[in-house]
Amino acid sequence: MHTDLVAALDIGGTKIAGALVDRQGRILVRAQRPTPAQGNGETVMRAVEAVLGELAGSPLWHRAGAVGIGSAGPVDASAGTVSPVNVPGWRGYPLVARVRDAAGGLPVELIGDGVAITAAEHWQGAARGHDNALCMVVSTGVGGGLVLGGRLHPGPTGNAGHIGHISVDLGGDLCPCGSRGCVERIASGPNIARRALDDGWRPGPDGDVSAAAVASAARAGDPVAVASFERAARALAAGIAATATLVEIDIAVIGGGVGKAGEVLFAPLRKALTEYATLSFVQRLAVAPARMGTDAGLVGAAAAALEGRTDAAVVGV
Amino acid sequence: MHTDLVAALDIGGTKIAGALVDRQGRILVRAQRPTPAQGNGETVMRAVEAVLGELAGSPLWHRAGAVGIGSAGPVDASAGTVSPVNVPGWRGYPLVARVRDAAGGLPVELIGDGVAITAAEHWQGAARGHDNALCMVVSTGVGGGLVLGGRLHPGPTGNAGHIGHISVDLGGDLCPCGSRGCVERIASGPNIARRALDDGWRPGPDGDVSAAAVASAARAGDPVAVASFERAARALAAGIAATATLVEIDIAVIGGGVGKAGEVLFAPLRKALTEYATLSFVQRLAVAPARMGTDAGLVGAAAAALEGRTDAAVVGV
Repeated sequence: MHTDLVAALDIGGTKIAGALVDRQGRILVRAQRPTPAQGNGETVMRAVEAVLGELAGSPLWHRAGAVGIGSAGPVDASAGTVSPVNVPGWRGYPLVARVRDAAGGLPVELIGDGVAITAAEHWQGAARGHDNALCMVVSTGVGGGLVLGGRLHPGPTGNAGHIGHISVDLGGDLCPCGSRGCVERIASGPNIARRALDDGWRPGPDGDVSAAAVASAARAGDPVAVASFERAARALAAGIAATATLVEIDIAVIGGGVGKAGEVLFAPLRKALTEYATLSFVQRLAVAPARMGTDAGLVGAAAAALEGRTDAAVVGV
Repeated sequence: MHTDLVAALDIGGTKIAGALVDRQGRILVRAQRPTPAQGNGETVMRAVEAVLGELAGSPLWHRAGAVGIGSAGPVDASAGTVSPVNVPGWRGYPLVARVRDAAGGLPVELIGDGVAITAAEHWQGAARGHDNALCMVVSTGVGGGLVLGGRLHPGPTGNAGHIGHISVDLGGDLCPCGSRGCVERIASGPNIARRALDDGWRPGPDGDVSAAAVASAARAGDPVAVASFERAARALAAGIAATATLVEIDIAVIGGGVGKAGEVLFAPLRKALTEYATLSFVQRLAVAPARMGTDAGLVGAAAAALEGRTDAAVVGV
């Protein structure tokens, strides 16, 4: 690719963000629309086209040589389609072809949002310099992506690294995905809060029952709040240890709202990792908070576009 | 490499097997010694040297251009050392350097035994033609290896695919590895037999309390024996589903003694996979019995030597 910019799209259930990004990962132009998540497929696509149209209005657009898309999943990169759980109007929706048309025929790379965030953390964030890494978002859901052998590993359909839906408790609670005892079913923000409430934690006068409020209570020493974070930490540790044992990662990067809880999460997580990551080749596994902010999805989508998905060495560090 | 043969070593706790193998994976010369597993490091090494010496006595030896080693783990391919659990005299033992010396300076490739079996199944067995596969041995222990993107994925230390020691039951029974609820702790042959005995199964007049005897009882309809295999199948399914969800495999190949139990294992395994492999991109996941026999370790070590470990496209299909 001989142009020096790419267009990036970060498509979620709440907003559709777009940007023109340079080879250093700098965002030069931005555009954004709310996701009409309950609209039909064409309604959602018009919002994407509005974002692209705004980018195309920039005097820098002619320098863009490709489009990278990080989308809420599941995606199917091999078919070029997306079926985001929270966008019911898109089921097997041919997003790659539609974006290619809307972008004047530019090549389009599609990856899942967890993979996009991983590309960003590996390029510029906490996983920089690590050839084998798991990057996670622990928030309303739990997602992730993998870097293996120095390269992004999106897998054939762009969904690899879906750590939120591996079972670490095979007889555990049913997960909305249909399985049981998934990491997300235990460690997501809503599940941390639900567990604390079930066990008798009560919110303060503001009535805030979010995981952030549980984290505040844990920081203040509330034993039920502490226990809920410890349980989440054990589930995350079992999932991270499983990943390391299966593919030999040396760092797990954790972002998202729950990831921002700090030592309330990270202290029991490090302890639990010593219990679950036992084999010699995984004992040096590190965990670190994410460093990329809310632009991670855009920067990661740009990284995928800059390098091409399939045989992408993540952009040089 | 311009020679047409390789030497292969398959090093386990019971025997050390060696062979000269051609580019079609045919074994032309064999040698074998029992593993003096309780001996000191030099005693064990002398058995390896005896195997290599016997191979070197063959008139075909001069055509061998490399040595491939598949060893019981953990191994450290990056350091060239091995620390097999059942060979206490070898801890961080510099096997690669010692084999290189004993083989007249030939290049040496080291991989774990689960990775070796995976290389063999991918080259000539049940995973042939699959670009993303998990191959497992379910026996006294549970081991495995991965093929990702058409290539063997040994990981930086040669241990990737260690599915036996991922936890699928984070509050479950302690495993000798130090973790809890590992796949091996539930699904290995001895654990299948132990569970059946604990729940009231009794062996026949021959007193055979192996997993094979439990499998026979299950085939005859004994409900406790059936339940023990179903529980093992659930643990294997959770582990296989986790692997597929993390790295997008499309087939899991199961060998080893327990893998030979047939439909007593595979029927509940396929059913349990529908429960645990729920996301769209893993729903087409297949399971199949291994096709390679007892030579799988040798053939896989040969494959590693033929291609070079690190960037090994597994030998052309």
